[in-house]
Amino acid sequence: MNYCSQCGATVIQRIPPGDNLPRYVCDSCGAVHYQNPKIVAGCIPEWEDRILLCRRAIEPRRGYWTLPAGFMENGETTQAAAAREAHEEAGAVMEEMSLYGIFNLPHISQVYTMFRGRLGGGQAHPGSESLEVELFTEADIPWRELAFPVVRETLELYFDDRRQGVFEVHVGDIIRHPDQRLEIRRY
Amino acid sequence: MNYCSQCGATVIQRIPPGDNLPRYVCDSCGAVHYQNPKIVAGCIPEWEDRILLCRRAIEPRRGYWTLPAGFMENGETTQAAAAREAHEEAGAVMEEMSLYGIFNLPHISQVYTMFRGRLGGGQAHPGSESLEVELFTEADIPWRELAFPVVRETLELYFDDRRQGVFEVHVGDIIRHPDQRLEIRRY
Repeated sequence: MNYCSQCGATVIQRIPPGDNLPRYVCDSCGAVHYQNPKIVAGCIPEWEDRILLCRRAIEPRRGYWTLPAGFMENGETTQAAAAREAHEEAGAVMEEMSLYGIFNLPHISQVYTMFRGRLGGGQAHPGSESLEVELFTEADIPWRELAFPVVRETLELYFDDRRQGVFEVHVGDIIRHPDQRLEIRRY
Repeated sequence: MNYCSQCGATVIQRIPPGDNLPRYVCDSCGAVHYQNPKIVAGCIPEWEDRILLCRRAIEPRRGYWTLPAGFMENGETTQAAAAREAHEEAGAVMEEMSLYGIFNLPHISQVYTMFRGRLGGGQAHPGSESLEVELFTEADIPWRELAFPVVRETLELYFDDRRQGVFEVHVGDIIRHPDQRLEIRRY
């Protein structure tokens, strides 16, 4: 951030009075520009013993498989955002959705809210951000070609739960350390 | 938003190619400025049969009672943000936290993530944003002086759960319609 989005003057980074973190501050109009984490809302679409994955048509991780998910928009609920992403990326109509987990990715300031639900009619087709969509049994999941650690983590928890016959709501942290080491914490 | 925070040129609102919602776009440097919901992280601090509330020292709703909660910061996890807010607003040290619910407030583009947990040592004192802090039994909760509908909703669900002896993870929508009517949806 270089300029104030309100008045166009140059901003500087400084801790405002009464605050304890540096913010982008405009000394011309007084605006403080906060930057906050973003929510990614996604789905585990279920059909019989299979779940739906999308192969990404866009960067990052083009060509790799993911659960349908994307940035939540203003004015939405998390579950509406998750259902919208499943529709946009896979032509999927989600039914009977329930919260499956929230996953914190503090190194990129994102929080994933994941819902599971039935894939209406078992029907799906690739949207503009997907090369293909496919229903996978647990045995057929392309574990080595998953797009993101949060997708692997969600799928591992999901199949563990399914084997035990109880779906809990999970909280997890997925942390990429500066040395690139990945740390997974489950609560 | 009036000016591009990257290059300082005037922005306009327009649907970018491949998108389906209007965004603030800079035709000078090409930046697209997305605006997304914010996460508010909060706690239900428990001590024996009582829970901790804070009386707000700041607007909005100065003088009204709330659960400790505030905007999540970049680089945090949701549970760390909730614990930090409890410490800042009430000097509280939270222990054994678990996810209690996520509540969507689409009319103001906020998502509350609420955690319950033990108030360490039963100790609390008002931080700079609180006039006072106090432990309340269910019978003593100041229901008519609660700051926000999401606080009421969280407390109602919490005491229902406690009476039944089972704490579930809740998902709820708290919607203020244009005619000011409040709608609560529970999932």
